[in-house]
Amino acid sequence: MKVAVFRKEHFNAAHRLHNPDWDQETNQKVYGKCNNPNYHGHNYDLIVKVTGEIDPRTGYVMDMKVLKDLISQYIIERFDHKNLNLDTSEFQNLNPTAENIAVVIWNILRPQVDPSLDLHITLYETERNYVEYPAH
Amino acid sequence: MKVAVFRKEHFNAAHRLHNPDWDQETNQKVYGKCNNPNYHGHNYDLIVKVTGEIDPRTGYVMDMKVLKDLISQYIIERFDHKNLNLDTSEFQNLNPTAENIAVVIWNILRPQVDPSLDLHITLYETERNYVEYPAH
Amino acid sequence: MKVAVFRKEHFNAAHRLHNPDWDQETNQKVYGKCNNPNYHGHNYDLIVKVTGEIDPRTGYVMDMKVLKDLISQYIIERFDHKNLNLDTSEFQNLNPTAENIAVVIWNILRPQVDPSLDLHITLYETERNYVEYPAH
Amino acid sequence: MKVAVFRKEHFNAAHRLHNPDWDQETNQKVYGKCNNPNYHGHNYDLIVKVTGEIDPRTGYVMDMKVLKDLISQYIIERFDHKNLNLDTSEFQNLNPTAENIAVVIWNILRPQVDPSLDLHITLYETERNYVEYPAH
Amino acid sequence: MKVAVFRKEHFNAAHRLHNPDWDQETNQKVYGKCNNPNYHGHNYDLIVKVTGEIDPRTGYVMDMKVLKDLISQYIIERFDHKNLNLDTSEFQNLNPTAENIAVVIWNILRPQVDPSLDLHITLYETERNYVEYPAH
Amino acid sequence: MKVAVFRKEHFNAAHRLHNPDWDQETNQKVYGKCNNPNYHGHNYDLIVKVTGEIDPRTGYVMDMKVLKDLISQYIIERFDHKNLNLDTSEFQNLNPTAENIAVVIWNILRPQVDPSLDLHITLYETERNYVEYPAH
Repeated sequence: MKVAVFRKEHFNAAHRLHNPDWDQETNQKVYGKCNNPNYHGHNYDLIVKVTGEIDPRTGYVMDMKVLKDLISQYIIERFDHKNLNLDTSEFQNLNPTAENIAVVIWNILRPQVDPSLDLHITLYETERNYVEYPAH
Repeated sequence: MKVAVFRKEHFNAAHRLHNPDWDQETNQKVYGKCNNPNYHGHNYDLIVKVTGEIDPRTGYVMDMKVLKDLISQYIIERFDHKNLNLDTSEFQNLNPTAENIAVVIWNILRPQVDPSLDLHITLYETERNYVEYPAH
Repeated sequence: MKVAVFRKEHFNAAHRLHNPDWDQETNQKVYGKCNNPNYHGHNYDLIVKVTGEIDPRTGYVMDMKVLKDLISQYIIERFDHKNLNLDTSEFQNLNPTAENIAVVIWNILRPQVDPSLDLHITLYETERNYVEYPAH
Repeated sequence: MKVAVFRKEHFNAAHRLHNPDWDQETNQKVYGKCNNPNYHGHNYDLIVKVTGEIDPRTGYVMDMKVLKDLISQYIIERFDHKNLNLDTSEFQNLNPTAENIAVVIWNILRPQVDPSLDLHITLYETERNYVEYPAH
Repeated sequence: MKVAVFRKEHFNAAHRLHNPDWDQETNQKVYGKCNNPNYHGHNYDLIVKVTGEIDPRTGYVMDMKVLKDLISQYIIERFDHKNLNLDTSEFQNLNPTAENIAVVIWNILRPQVDPSLDLHITLYETERNYVEYPAH
Repeated sequence: MKVAVFRKEHFNAAHRLHNPDWDQETNQKVYGKCNNPNYHGHNYDLIVKVTGEIDPRTGYVMDMKVLKDLISQYIIERFDHKNLNLDTSEFQNLNPTAENIAVVIWNILRPQVDPSLDLHITLYETERNYVEYPAH
């Protein structure tokens, strides 16, 4: 049986939900306040879950300091205190919904984590709205 | 791979655990303080999880405002500030344990959510006691 | 300068807000859903704050185990898994609003705590509604 | 002795810290990442504290539903899902630091609350950074 | 479909991460501050999850009071306010990483819980570092 | 009216409560499990509150990055992943109760913060036990 380890980090960012293929009325209807043209923002809480066997020498599935540094280097540096729509390449043509942000984070981290380990992302947009990828 | 979205809501209710097929001594032995004939109560925290594919047009698995409104209309209106044993039809003949409340909520919401989407309920009776249905 | 020590406990109870001097319409207008005749309930979080000098022998303002036991004996035993309106003498003729419950708890605990120590009560009715007595 | 009642609400907003009287280098030195020209954002948690005597008829210092509605009407409607720098009149010429936002909220709410009641604002910019006005 | 019930408890303990097969330099490189020879400590939050069918007589998967007592008797009594390396037999020759502690707790509790019920352990070493066994 | 700003940090440490002037029986009676000779430990959450006027140029009472760095340099470096009794000079002859740790932290930080600003310390030993110095 495998063990999962979890590391929680956070970043703050501005974003706007908008589909350029739609007119303004449709965008407003679908996204409501989240379509505000001047952006709004969130404190995103990010939980990265890594699943695998315990290494009997270290007692670790994965060194949490290494995981913390990976998250910091690849995710926090990229998204913290940024405007997701304007300041990042990932969301130039992708709507920064919580779902899409979680998938983007998984795609960025997946090559950085040993292929023998499973990877899951949980992203809290607010305390009451959050997403998980891939879903269990 | 699918994405799960979660929405957290809450309601406050009174309840009493009691099995009418048992005598008072057995009820007291099984349910202890929870059998108090004049009821006690809880702040219930409810997390509804919906799992499916991201709609590429919206970037959503399901619009969280729609999910919030469904929970409000079908669950919060029904149970908030109510006595579960006396004020609801669901628990006239069903013991309002956390397990049973979670199953009831799932049964109420299931027809309201698109059949292509999976549905899971987590219900916190207290910060230290909670249940999940269906279990992973 | 003095030090304050805090101990957090909790109890679950049913209650109803109702003023018998008013007609049903006025009660409904003032208390809304909280006036439900069959009661509703809460998980109450209680924080007891005791302020005084550090005893140089123990390093304590007050032994937290003693404080915990006082809260358990005088408050939790009295109110946990009870109907505040029906099962307690304190609220036979007093509306169990969060404000009144906090004052009642202070009045019960004050004689149990050394007079040289100040006493303050914080009571959470929900995560979003809470009260403090006496106010700072 | 008086009682304090607290109501917690939240809003999400984008902002940027910037002093137009300074050059870019000074702004960068003082505000760091918070000076990002394209804005970033936060989930702001707001706690409004109102202090006064319990009304013996209602058992309330102030009806929490009324307080909730005041916060919603005067604060949440104004700031939620907004860019504080661009979308609000209050921060056209005032830097939206947590300190200044708290003072602005107090100034907006003060005329709406009975003068016999004291008013205090706590504003969480993140879980780890928050402010209180007026300070105790 | 099955239901899962969760019970949260906590214990406080000292520990040190150290592999006696390695020299001091390697231990320092792998474990960093966690290798401090005089120990450091944590407030461990433990969540025990039990999965099974609802008993139609009780409405319970498992009586939470029974589960709480099992955790108290077999885990809290054993580890609370202890030095995991020095005061327990389980970690005489096993490194008390969060991963290993979770597996040890599962091994201790497994024989105490009905074989028809599944058992999962979540252990928080800090708010930001936690583990799950067996992993989903 | 002044504004208070708060910064939350944390450290993990081992400690033991013991008064060398007392015999073992008295120590056991007063401190119970906290007297365990091999130490136990905690995740300490530390909140530093600084009160003063808003600087109209920065909009800050005090730059939170500066405050964070002060706490890191003077407190976290000193106490994190340490045995308070064995690894620190401050508790060589002082019992590391939460009360005494809070006073020690205040005494260390006071000279580092501008004398025009008030300083308060809140220290959580557990989620349910915490202290404040100086008390309000």
